[in-house]
Amino acid sequence: MSARLLAEALGTFFLFATVVGAGIMAEKLAGGNVAVALIGNTLPIAGMLFVIIVMLGPISGAHFNPVVTLVMKLRGEIESGAALAYVLVQVISGVLAVWAVHLMFELPIIQIADTPRTGIGQWVSEGIATFGLILTILATARAAPERVPVSVALYIFAACWFTSSTSFANPAITIARSFTDTFAGIAAMDIPGFVAAQIAGALLAMGVGRVLLGPEPAV
Amino acid sequence: MSARLLAEALGTFFLFATVVGAGIMAEKLAGGNVAVALIGNTLPIAGMLFVIIVMLGPISGAHFNPVVTLVMKLRGEIESGAALAYVLVQVISGVLAVWAVHLMFELPIIQIADTPRTGIGQWVSEGIATFGLILTILATARAAPERVPVSVALYIFAACWFTSSTSFANPAITIARSFTDTFAGIAAMDIPGFVAAQIAGALLAMGVGRVLLGPEPAV
Amino acid sequence: MSARLLAEALGTFFLFATVVGAGIMAEKLAGGNVAVALIGNTLPIAGMLFVIIVMLGPISGAHFNPVVTLVMKLRGEIESGAALAYVLVQVISGVLAVWAVHLMFELPIIQIADTPRTGIGQWVSEGIATFGLILTILATARAAPERVPVSVALYIFAACWFTSSTSFANPAITIARSFTDTFAGIAAMDIPGFVAAQIAGALLAMGVGRVLLGPEPAV
Amino acid sequence: MSARLLAEALGTFFLFATVVGAGIMAEKLAGGNVAVALIGNTLPIAGMLFVIIVMLGPISGAHFNPVVTLVMKLRGEIESGAALAYVLVQVISGVLAVWAVHLMFELPIIQIADTPRTGIGQWVSEGIATFGLILTILATARAAPERVPVSVALYIFAACWFTSSTSFANPAITIARSFTDTFAGIAAMDIPGFVAAQIAGALLAMGVGRVLLGPEPAV
Repeated sequence: MSARLLAEALGTFFLFATVVGAGIMAEKLAGGNVAVALIGNTLPIAGMLFVIIVMLGPISGAHFNPVVTLVMKLRGEIESGAALAYVLVQVISGVLAVWAVHLMFELPIIQIADTPRTGIGQWVSEGIATFGLILTILATARAAPERVPVSVALYIFAACWFTSSTSFANPAITIARSFTDTFAGIAAMDIPGFVAAQIAGALLAMGVGRVLLGPEPAV
Repeated sequence: MSARLLAEALGTFFLFATVVGAGIMAEKLAGGNVAVALIGNTLPIAGMLFVIIVMLGPISGAHFNPVVTLVMKLRGEIESGAALAYVLVQVISGVLAVWAVHLMFELPIIQIADTPRTGIGQWVSEGIATFGLILTILATARAAPERVPVSVALYIFAACWFTSSTSFANPAITIARSFTDTFAGIAAMDIPGFVAAQIAGALLAMGVGRVLLGPEPAV
Repeated sequence: MSARLLAEALGTFFLFATVVGAGIMAEKLAGGNVAVALIGNTLPIAGMLFVIIVMLGPISGAHFNPVVTLVMKLRGEIESGAALAYVLVQVISGVLAVWAVHLMFELPIIQIADTPRTGIGQWVSEGIATFGLILTILATARAAPERVPVSVALYIFAACWFTSSTSFANPAITIARSFTDTFAGIAAMDIPGFVAAQIAGALLAMGVGRVLLGPEPAV
Repeated sequence: MSARLLAEALGTFFLFATVVGAGIMAEKLAGGNVAVALIGNTLPIAGMLFVIIVMLGPISGAHFNPVVTLVMKLRGEIESGAALAYVLVQVISGVLAVWAVHLMFELPIIQIADTPRTGIGQWVSEGIATFGLILTILATARAAPERVPVSVALYIFAACWFTSSTSFANPAITIARSFTDTFAGIAAMDIPGFVAAQIAGALLAMGVGRVLLGPEPAV
């Protein structure tokens, strides 16, 4: 496996482990106060996002998210074969992370999520959340590239709170979360709605980004 | 719409969506512990403020707030027509953000706030909060311009906690929050007192800033 | 009043307003969960510390604390008359901040604190907390001067939690907090013990700092 | 004692004091909500980690952790004698920090922890947590050395939440925590399992790091 794919695998592993593991830990300890659980889930997610984007960005571009890979493919910043490999690695490493978390918390390794997450409110949430994520990446890369890690981390943190879906904004994470029947779970039948909304939001952000940012500066 | 106005519209949309949406989410999950709800509301606001100022600052100046636009107009840093357009976009985009949040949380789109927010304590709070915001912008722009985004974010976060009004400090947000009868709401009849206090605080900060910072350095 | 003293007055005002105001807000909303109240009190303090040190540091050095002024005097970085004026401004502005907070929260303006804070555990806490604060300032100024604001903010945040006294670490704030019978209060008779411990910790940090950092580099 | 050892002693003291002291404070105030206690424990730990790595990094390398010292020894970045002295200072200063915390909170100074922390879930947690810590250090030092302090702080913060062991990831802290029968305690008989898992995770990270990062760039 190339260093680039290894970087995607490692970053996705730690990101998804944080999403699911901190969710389990926070819910277990929060005594039924779900807002406390969400604080204990979302702050670590933001922290981990910063860490992995900083350290792996120079190696793989730090996608960890198939819609990011899709946008980069459409912008011509990654070749088709690599993009496909990225997405496969993101999904596989994400599922492995979920299983590793189950092992750490001594839960059954293989689980299927039951939590329904569907409806117009959730889909609009995923669309807006992903729109904002891609816009943040594109506009920050232009305005202050060294701040992409902190901005992506803080954007996702905020989006977890201002959307009714808690902002998955990532098809690989949506799939991986269908493999855990814990705080972060999502029923498998609800995946297509989420992923469609995520792709729609991402494509809209590409279009708006073009108006906002103008053509790429010649180098 | 020019890129500048689009930037103001996008930034205001995400900022106000976070104020109102995270407020709804946090209150819904906090089980009656309002301090937990305020943590879950104010941390995302701070995060989003950083994100939008960093990525949109180079395009529009990242006002997202009519008193900031007013101060920039008085300092001659924006022309009158653009200033007026900025304020209109801030109010309109802010109201649209409130409606989008209602859609995400499957609440009635059109709402009118009932929450009374009035009295000398609230007005002094808004005056001090806005004074501090404008002072932070002016003094940080002189001392360390690249730190304006993080300082504005952290200042607003702190001001949400040390004032009894939770620091609106923004006339557009005050208006937009009258369109939601949720955690962040404010009764329409209480808007004028808030806005007057915000403008008074901003003007005072301009004066104090002149004493503190001296004349603009010649370029 | 010179710009330097104005800077000390403004910074102290906002810092102390945050200490006392966020304390009142957090305790009022926390429904008896004091840890939640302390989170809602200490995060804003850290945020405000960063803001005021960044924006006022170039003007006054951003002391806001008599033991910091004392250490700078002993190191020959501030003249005696200015040091005395700094301390006076810190105490006066700090008390005014407390009164402004009482006005914002519509509490009686003039209050005398009742909360006892005394005993060997509290004094050791103040000594260690202030030792760490001065060491952080001296060592970070040598290692990475541009990181003094964030390091001081995070140090004080941590010290609020690892000491039993919640880390006043500032004689002016100790005095000002005797003027509020709220979350942040301290009985007047307990001030001398706190201030003595703070001075002892600061002087010890100067000595240890000399061993750790060696002589000042020649410029 | 050389400045290097003094730096290790001071950093370890404040780090371990935060781990144990903030744990006591947070648990005492959290009214039985353990998630709130963990927020009040882990946020200060992250803050303090940033502070001590920034200010002491240029002096000692800011290890504060025997497995970090071990990895640096294996990479040839520290001589054997110094490495041994580092580890001794880390353990001794860590135990002194625990006793200082007991003094601050007026608890019996000498305590022996009772809390069992054992089993496959805990060991896998420590292995993964330490693997991620060492990978973060190695990869961030290559990608953006000035961000090592913030990345290590945020990584540890996240790892406290996504692992079932709350991520000790440090043999010296594991030993020191056996000397306190409070929130942070660990029974002495459970130390070997934790330390073995930590060393295994660290060595694995060195190997993976070599694949990910390739050979050291020639200077």
